[in-house]
Amino acid sequence: MVRAMNNSGNVFLDYSCLNMAEGLLSAGVENTHVVYDVFFREIPDKGGFAIMAGLEQLIDELKNLKFTTEELDVLRKEGFSEKLVSYLADFEFSCDVYAIPEGTPVFPNEPIVKVCGPVIEAQLIETVVLNVINYQTLVATKANRVVRAAQGKKVVEMGARRAHGFDSAILGARAAYIGGAAATTLYNAAEKFNIPSAAPMSHSWVQLFDDELEAFKLYLEKHGENGMLLVDTYDTLESGVKNAVEAFENVLVPKGLRPAGIIIDSGDMTYLSKRARRILDESGFPDCDIYASNSLDEILIKDMINQGAKIDGFIVGEKLITSESSPVLDGVYKLCETEKNGERIPAIMVSNNVNKITTPCSKRVWRLFDMESGKAIADVLTLADESIDNEKTYSLFDPDFTWKRKTVDNFVAREMLVTVFKDGKVVYNVPSIEDVRAYCTDQVSTLWDEVTRFENPHKYYVDFSGKLWGVKQSLIEKNSKF
Amino acid sequence: MVRAMNNSGNVFLDYSCLNMAEGLLSAGVENTHVVYDVFFREIPDKGGFAIMAGLEQLIDELKNLKFTTEELDVLRKEGFSEKLVSYLADFEFSCDVYAIPEGTPVFPNEPIVKVCGPVIEAQLIETVVLNVINYQTLVATKANRVVRAAQGKKVVEMGARRAHGFDSAILGARAAYIGGAAATTLYNAAEKFNIPSAAPMSHSWVQLFDDELEAFKLYLEKHGENGMLLVDTYDTLESGVKNAVEAFENVLVPKGLRPAGIIIDSGDMTYLSKRARRILDESGFPDCDIYASNSLDEILIKDMINQGAKIDGFIVGEKLITSESSPVLDGVYKLCETEKNGERIPAIMVSNNVNKITTPCSKRVWRLFDMESGKAIADVLTLADESIDNEKTYSLFDPDFTWKRKTVDNFVAREMLVTVFKDGKVVYNVPSIEDVRAYCTDQVSTLWDEVTRFENPHKYYVDFSGKLWGVKQSLIEKNSKF
Repeated sequence: MVRAMNNSGNVFLDYSCLNMAEGLLSAGVENTHVVYDVFFREIPDKGGFAIMAGLEQLIDELKNLKFTTEELDVLRKEGFSEKLVSYLADFEFSCDVYAIPEGTPVFPNEPIVKVCGPVIEAQLIETVVLNVINYQTLVATKANRVVRAAQGKKVVEMGARRAHGFDSAILGARAAYIGGAAATTLYNAAEKFNIPSAAPMSHSWVQLFDDELEAFKLYLEKHGENGMLLVDTYDTLESGVKNAVEAFENVLVPKGLRPAGIIIDSGDMTYLSKRARRILDESGFPDCDIYASNSLDEILIKDMINQGAKIDGFIVGEKLITSESSPVLDGVYKLCETEKNGERIPAIMVSNNVNKITTPCSKRVWRLFDMESGKAIADVLTLADESIDNEKTYSLFDPDFTWKRKTVDNFVAREMLVTVFKDGKVVYNVPSIEDVRAYCTDQVSTLWDEVTRFENPHKYYVDFSGKLWGVKQSLIEKNSKF
Repeated sequence: MVRAMNNSGNVFLDYSCLNMAEGLLSAGVENTHVVYDVFFREIPDKGGFAIMAGLEQLIDELKNLKFTTEELDVLRKEGFSEKLVSYLADFEFSCDVYAIPEGTPVFPNEPIVKVCGPVIEAQLIETVVLNVINYQTLVATKANRVVRAAQGKKVVEMGARRAHGFDSAILGARAAYIGGAAATTLYNAAEKFNIPSAAPMSHSWVQLFDDELEAFKLYLEKHGENGMLLVDTYDTLESGVKNAVEAFENVLVPKGLRPAGIIIDSGDMTYLSKRARRILDESGFPDCDIYASNSLDEILIKDMINQGAKIDGFIVGEKLITSESSPVLDGVYKLCETEKNGERIPAIMVSNNVNKITTPCSKRVWRLFDMESGKAIADVLTLADESIDNEKTYSLFDPDFTWKRKTVDNFVAREMLVTVFKDGKVVYNVPSIEDVRAYCTDQVSTLWDEVTRFENPHKYYVDFSGKLWGVKQSLIEKNSKF
């Protein structure tokens, strides 16, 4: 199998992580206890929510964090200090890590991963944490949009040819499955993660033979009722669909087999699918599925379904695996608490860009669900030692527009960050990918339609407790010199 | 070191490659001699050209193509035939591969890689070839745009945190360097490919200490004249730049050292850089460079330079490594020649989408350079047995608009596809990355300004020989039933 991700005991990092570590050792503050939050600021595609993904791989990376002798030699050669090299030689991960489970809808400006421990360790893992979580969350989010657009029709992920590298293709297929895709065409991903697979025919097959009919017959003789025929190599309606029908009749029907489907990969697929549907129905193959596969995304799929396209499944390539219309999740890793003389000190970054100001303190994330409808009402960030009591009413207020207030009752508050590492050891049972996928569908259904809308979705509330809000305001005032 | 790409003897492929192989064996046509072209249809960002990249990794992949026993067992278990499994067990790559060298400007609809050999082999490598070439070519192209926008100022690549996986970050850094970036912040890429590195400071360092000045001083004590200070944690002008000056005076000046630079990561960087420049100059640090690093791309960099920003270097993150504004290179792998009874037969795909029609025949790619100016005049695709004679005039014509004709003389015709594999063995000397990068700069300078423009560039000519045009037209007429 092709390796996806790094499990050879090596470490993926920016030089800044090494420089930070070197500086911390030199200043003698490497063991300062800190808290870092991972959060993002913008939802891809201006959507209403993202889907958390990548935690399983992050756990693998962190638990295998070791610096090899070979690597230490390289660092020495590059001029890093013997102090750093010997620290890394004895490196043992000891942080506590909390995270929101994979498949959960997540929102801007709330911690989705939280790392607590010695600052030198927390700094060394920054690049790994962000790379792993940013990419898979991006793709799971996009896949979920595509799957929702498809309204129950199958979505097959087929992005390997244009993904950003092998890892991207393999882990992207995984994230797409979490987001709701039905299958991947990538062997390496299906095999590694035990994801259902699909194998569309390619144009080359048709081109290799004297005529399309011969190519179709040979393909069906080999692949039987798993063989989906690609019908657009020459002319979809006049040649492809007619030859497909003839091949079904000649090869499958005598054996008592039924056709898997046909694939249309070019032309106007709404029009062609309706015409193809009629030909197939009239020829006695109403059970033959029609798949479409030409540069599809959620917008086109939604439009095609609205226009009555007769399509039973969508094969989605580069626009899913790269999240082409919005290919970056802007997750950051920010210090929110540090320590002085044994006391915890909230940390903030007060930027000239207001949207870059961070939220201080070690925090908890709560999601309030309405007891009656089961719907998610809001997320609330509190200090780490605060709780939300289901038995009482709770007063929500917007941290930016504090006059916007709402009192809720009859709710259940669920804590969203679960403990993944305790003192550097994994204490989390990683669920199966099937469970994560089912959980994702279930949790998306707790969101109001207003939040799941593609265009101009309602902004889901991520509110602060009064105490957290108070700490943040006082730090902004203290640090700002505007 | 973190592994980038697959060198463990495993194969990256879509199920369709396996299905094709199975079908070919079953039909007994697996050794049909074929020719496949890799080409793309659209230039990212609607630019005038792309930069070829990824060939070195493609060579590594193809020369290590082996199926392990473990992998064969998996295939057997998945229901693939014993015939396929035993074919793969003895697999030995025997194709000829031609490619345009890395760093070369390339254009739509011309073969940038050409694979000739038994169809079963050519099919098995489709996913690998496309994934490797599409991604690195995409990033080299984007990096070249960013570097051209920066007009000689340094561009530092810093995308690892938001790249699409580890491979993407590592290989993206390589491609960015080919496209002209000066350095990468990613340890794993710098070390693996021997690329210059850079290590911007992070906000956490400043937040960890009681005040910014203390943080700066400690950093400079450790990193001396390599330590670049990040000045926007609290307030860029009122706090950051002033503290930086004080730290330079206190720590560097007494040791006779000069500052490396400051980094501005938020706010309006044109305004802030001018103000910061003045403060630095007036404080005796006119040699202190100013770097900018907030969501930069080529458009913003060009605008900032036009507005007189006093920036000496640009640190470019996700918008480069993901080519955010255009994150897909749409490279495809298409059959252009097959064989029947020992005779070579041109192959075509005549799609309902006119732009998806392929160009048949095994081809050569020629670039005609004007002898006087050294500029590239046009590329010409010919049949594989045609030549272009520098001594004669050559009549160019547009394959779509055939009345557009131009006769050229006083030119040199260079053949662009070089032999990389002959009978499955590497016959190409892979140049050093430094040579590729220098060659890239040199070759981009052979393009007219009209072609290198960002907005509405002139469409560079990719023309056909009369013979090739004739074959294509006759095949379209034969196969089309419109």
